[in-house]
Amino acid sequence: MLEPKRGAIAAVPCSDNQNTSIQLVELEQESVARAVSDVSGRLAHYFATEVIDGPQLAVDLEMVEARYNTLAAGFRGADIFYAIKANPSVEILDRVAALGGYFDCASMGEIDLVLSRGVSPSRISFGNTIKKESAIRKAFDCGVRLFSFDSEGELEKLARSAPGASVFCRILAENDSADWPLSRKFGCSVKMAGDLLIEADRLGLDAYGVSFHVGSQQKNPRAWREALTDVAKLMQRLALSGVGLRMINLGGGMPARYDNGETDLLEYGAVVMAAVREQFGDRTLDLIIEPGRGLVADAGIIQAEVVLVSKKDDSDAPRWVYLDIGKFNGLAETMDEAIRYQIETIRSGEAVPAVLAGPTCDSVDVMYEKNPYPLPLDLKVGDKVWILGTGAYTTTYSSVAFNGLPPLASVCI
Amino acid sequence: MLEPKRGAIAAVPCSDNQNTSIQLVELEQESVARAVSDVSGRLAHYFATEVIDGPQLAVDLEMVEARYNTLAAGFRGADIFYAIKANPSVEILDRVAALGGYFDCASMGEIDLVLSRGVSPSRISFGNTIKKESAIRKAFDCGVRLFSFDSEGELEKLARSAPGASVFCRILAENDSADWPLSRKFGCSVKMAGDLLIEADRLGLDAYGVSFHVGSQQKNPRAWREALTDVAKLMQRLALSGVGLRMINLGGGMPARYDNGETDLLEYGAVVMAAVREQFGDRTLDLIIEPGRGLVADAGIIQAEVVLVSKKDDSDAPRWVYLDIGKFNGLAETMDEAIRYQIETIRSGEAVPAVLAGPTCDSVDVMYEKNPYPLPLDLKVGDKVWILGTGAYTTTYSSVAFNGLPPLASVCI
Repeated sequence: MLEPKRGAIAAVPCSDNQNTSIQLVELEQESVARAVSDVSGRLAHYFATEVIDGPQLAVDLEMVEARYNTLAAGFRGADIFYAIKANPSVEILDRVAALGGYFDCASMGEIDLVLSRGVSPSRISFGNTIKKESAIRKAFDCGVRLFSFDSEGELEKLARSAPGASVFCRILAENDSADWPLSRKFGCSVKMAGDLLIEADRLGLDAYGVSFHVGSQQKNPRAWREALTDVAKLMQRLALSGVGLRMINLGGGMPARYDNGETDLLEYGAVVMAAVREQFGDRTLDLIIEPGRGLVADAGIIQAEVVLVSKKDDSDAPRWVYLDIGKFNGLAETMDEAIRYQIETIRSGEAVPAVLAGPTCDSVDVMYEKNPYPLPLDLKVGDKVWILGTGAYTTTYSSVAFNGLPPLASVCI
Repeated sequence: MLEPKRGAIAAVPCSDNQNTSIQLVELEQESVARAVSDVSGRLAHYFATEVIDGPQLAVDLEMVEARYNTLAAGFRGADIFYAIKANPSVEILDRVAALGGYFDCASMGEIDLVLSRGVSPSRISFGNTIKKESAIRKAFDCGVRLFSFDSEGELEKLARSAPGASVFCRILAENDSADWPLSRKFGCSVKMAGDLLIEADRLGLDAYGVSFHVGSQQKNPRAWREALTDVAKLMQRLALSGVGLRMINLGGGMPARYDNGETDLLEYGAVVMAAVREQFGDRTLDLIIEPGRGLVADAGIIQAEVVLVSKKDDSDAPRWVYLDIGKFNGLAETMDEAIRYQIETIRSGEAVPAVLAGPTCDSVDVMYEKNPYPLPLDLKVGDKVWILGTGAYTTTYSSVAFNGLPPLASVCI
């Protein structure tokens, strides 16, 4: 890895002095917080040497690859279907394809994108349980043969427009311990899944398997165990009906670092796979995992800028720190303060809680108000900040032009 | 107004019969819910005659013009600065410009857009209190001379980069009765505003006035009264310091219809203007209002489509109805169920509560779960639905490509 360029920072130490000259501030700006280089020397070098106007995400492809290999080792025997909704940058798709990965797509738009990179349709899963029939037909015509469903209405569409395709039914899984729980929007009861898979078989579809999702950013690998018990019972019931399922899609949920500590994904995967063996022993089953956040979040860092530091009243606390990025141009997942990113600066002053807000005229564009974010007291207008763990669910969430602001820019290095 | 084309619907009445033929259903699809034609015959005609693929917003420019004239009459004597963040479609900008309107812009991107329509910079207010200094300088270089601020940091930028410009300070206003309250992100205390306006004058800026915002979708016109009392006291204090303010920016907040009843904006404006006279009598003051939602929301209707109707379990209630539009491609303001849109269909079956959700693989993309939305029991996959009052804060909030879905399409007629 390349060492980051540290500009004049080694010669002129960062100072808390209020009288710091403009020249020194400019030199400091050339530098990058040490935490960034601790994550990725390549990203630190990039931010230290590129002139970037406006907020920008940079993703380290080497980190994506390393993470892919860790997941492959941890979940040995499972096929990795990258949930491209997390970050559909073509460089990431190409890297995953080169590593032998598969792709979980949410729409025909995503399928078109993956196919445009020369990926075979046999490596694509149309994983959204809510699809227009026209999209199912188009995907089928393109050669996609793997589809998810969780309702009778969707099954009927699949039988009509993807005849003979392999289908898997998503069941509801408990996910209390996830930071970003998935509610009841997706999945049906285990009982209904059984009925629907028998119906799938009757309709001439290949009743291939079952999927579940324990919740995004799921920090407890044991969360899989309960759902796997349900899956085992469901398979037994279906076998008695002459329908032999052959696949379990373990979904995503593998956590990123954010501000509450790194998870050892090797160990994490081992715990999940042990739970699989516990239920299914040595039975030959196709296993799928669908990491999105778990694969790319930690490989990305956003560089943003302080636009304003203010108080609402002389006696008021805390300060308000406004960035040129907010909920509508990249940090949507701060909604309800669900995801708390690690934010770094080059200032070394005492860290004091601040309300963090975005640059739009929208009052909802406030990120950490309930739990203000500790930021250095000497943080100033024009200072760069680095928001870690932002490789997933940032670029595509960006609004197209809210308040006349462009969507989040992004590069892969 | 044109009468909507009703296809074969007049000859073959809408039926609750489960055996309705596919042919009849197709004919029904050509029709449009009566509620749409009640709002705008022009929009009903548009939806009845155009083949639209995917969700789309259509805005009736005649309705925008009518609303502009109502606001101008209700708030007689105030200049209308259209808050273009609500909907920056160039056809709307052109119509507002033709009516003699002004423009409230949130960013240099919005200013560039307005200038590109041939509008004079003298008709533009840079109304965001959070601006990069580079944007202030660029706007000033383009001829913009009206800027907002609410903090010392912003004032310093303005003094440096927009010397001599007219500035107004935003004060905090109470807004408990608004559906979309504006929190403390914008505005400072009245005391601080006084200090800052004196400072503005000292720095060579034109301390022009004061602004406040009573909260978006503010249904109580009396909400202005309290803030106006504060403004009057502030003006008195400043006059004693030799700083004579000449402008009050009354902000926006004028409500749209949504699902809880229309507001008579003529009467509403009269109540606000009476409160102004109560405080300031016949004093010559420039008055500004900044309607966004109040000008364009009711003039727009989104046509969307039912993608799936499902249950999670045989015993489960309520149904889930999935549309091809959700929080991430147009209906962001359903966040926390803040805005409850009026949704119309051509079905006449009994209306039974349904959880309404969008088409993405994101569990957050659920719109009305706490308070399910009554929809006809005979609503079916492929049915068109019309979402009323969606002319504001829909298109630009759209994510750029979340889940591979395109941003909300839009036309003006």
